[in-house]
Amino acid sequence: MRIGIYGYGNLGRGVEIAAKKQCEAELVGVFTRRNADSVTPIYSETNVYPADAVYKFKEKIDVLIITSGSATDLPEMTPRLAEHFNVIDSFDTHAKISEHFKNTDFSAKKGGNIALISAGWDPGLFSLIRLYSEVFLPYGNTYTFWGKGVSQGHSDAIRRIDGVIDARQYTMPINEALDSVRCGEIRKFLPCEMHKRECFVLADKNADKEKIENEIKTIPNYFLGYDTSVNFITEEELLKNHSKLYHGGNVIRIGRTGVKNESFHKIELLLTLDSNPEFTGSILVAYAGAILRMKDDGVKGCKTVLDIPPSYLISEAEKEKYINLL
Amino acid sequence: MRIGIYGYGNLGRGVEIAAKKQCEAELVGVFTRRNADSVTPIYSETNVYPADAVYKFKEKIDVLIITSGSATDLPEMTPRLAEHFNVIDSFDTHAKISEHFKNTDFSAKKGGNIALISAGWDPGLFSLIRLYSEVFLPYGNTYTFWGKGVSQGHSDAIRRIDGVIDARQYTMPINEALDSVRCGEIRKFLPCEMHKRECFVLADKNADKEKIENEIKTIPNYFLGYDTSVNFITEEELLKNHSKLYHGGNVIRIGRTGVKNESFHKIELLLTLDSNPEFTGSILVAYAGAILRMKDDGVKGCKTVLDIPPSYLISEAEKEKYINLL
Repeated sequence: MRIGIYGYGNLGRGVEIAAKKQCEAELVGVFTRRNADSVTPIYSETNVYPADAVYKFKEKIDVLIITSGSATDLPEMTPRLAEHFNVIDSFDTHAKISEHFKNTDFSAKKGGNIALISAGWDPGLFSLIRLYSEVFLPYGNTYTFWGKGVSQGHSDAIRRIDGVIDARQYTMPINEALDSVRCGEIRKFLPCEMHKRECFVLADKNADKEKIENEIKTIPNYFLGYDTSVNFITEEELLKNHSKLYHGGNVIRIGRTGVKNESFHKIELLLTLDSNPEFTGSILVAYAGAILRMKDDGVKGCKTVLDIPPSYLISEAEKEKYINLL
Repeated sequence: MRIGIYGYGNLGRGVEIAAKKQCEAELVGVFTRRNADSVTPIYSETNVYPADAVYKFKEKIDVLIITSGSATDLPEMTPRLAEHFNVIDSFDTHAKISEHFKNTDFSAKKGGNIALISAGWDPGLFSLIRLYSEVFLPYGNTYTFWGKGVSQGHSDAIRRIDGVIDARQYTMPINEALDSVRCGEIRKFLPCEMHKRECFVLADKNADKEKIENEIKTIPNYFLGYDTSVNFITEEELLKNHSKLYHGGNVIRIGRTGVKNESFHKIELLLTLDSNPEFTGSILVAYAGAILRMKDDGVKGCKTVLDIPPSYLISEAEKEKYINLL
């Protein structure tokens, strides 16, 4: 299984590590829009090429894993590249997945390829758990909590503010909400009732910190209405205490069965990740094998993790083991 | 979707309730080896037929859900019935699943049917979580804990002892083991280091209780070596405090990523069930729709939950919702 990585940020590095450790995978190279000579891969033997060179590798790459951002890159890149390669991305703008699916499906079918979009842990593993728990407990409610973990989107939003040099935003579940859901309380939450936000900001030394704090707290959708704390820190503190990209979360389904709904059930998935990009990278590499097996069955076009039979994630040789360990 | 239930114990009743509540399902009837006139279904409108009459319903049942026991019934019933019906069972003798698969696959293919074996929560939901978490975190260890919950197999083993009228056995995780796994400690456990056993026994008034307790504690595989407590109780206590068939458990995967395996990750699924048979019944009914969708694709033979694409569990109409909620 020959893998290419298109885009080379934190997630790209996570995929690089996962691909190197996967014994069935061979890493063809990394494709970057930056100057290829200026990019230092994690493994010295990893080839680095300019992004545009990727088309020369059409016959040499079985699956191209696209690791760029969901805001503007993936909506353009994934459909464009799906015409030439089997591709996987981790597109995570929930509201636009349907549109991204249609665009990618069209071009993947045009090129006779298979594309998997929105793989990772959310969307991804969490989507799988939500689907399974909802069909197994059709009468119930599902709640998703994220954190404590670094949100790249929220950190970027802070970085765009005048006078901000760098920033880290941690999304944290509100424990009272999490506890009440775990105890089976059924209620509607506003997003700001489930999560709070903690910001660590490195500001320019002449910047008006009060103004920055106020600007952060009033960014609509991102911070407005949320319990948000803003802490100004030094560059040293930022490097020392805020360089890890840890994350995690919980999917909780509470549901009822019985003639009079008298039986209460709870399914909870808990995820704790030291490194969000390394775990996401590991998932993307796992699905590379799965989509190639589907393509061998003649499947083309765009898929999500919901469409992939779990057993396609393992080799024929492993299947016997899994039947015995079922 | 016309459903038949073959076998009518606790699980059969769980399937009956789930089928009645599933708006796409129509319950054709219950097939029992007992005298059909002596069986009172949960819903008065449920038809009860003798087991042998099932063959007359070949054209009237889309999926036959077989709810009998794994020890002796299912190994014979599922292959026999798979020749005539699309079938689902919850065969849970882990060591014999491979053999049961082969027998069922042979007769399902002979009859042009599809069969799903070993559906439920373990095997079933837990098997899915084990597979997903192992392929997403290939470097790691998986642990499964069960309980606190009623084990039918262990309760039955106690009931077979001379002088025992009735019994309930609760399987309980050993919290120290569970906590050490959650903290990331990697070690091998003997089964008796992960679980302990609590027994409540209604004995004949003339029975030698000391002898019964000793017999229980020395049953190989079931109790020998386990921390086992035996409590003799009255019939009133048994009815009052031990009539609920609750259960649950945890699947925990701890794994590492990173160049030097420096990043630690944990995936944990927690299940808490008021009613084991109702939840299992709900899963079996959910998969009835899924295997019919696979059969529409031309698939025949024996499958497990690992082979079913998650999206086959939902209707075409629901798919759009799930893409948007991915």
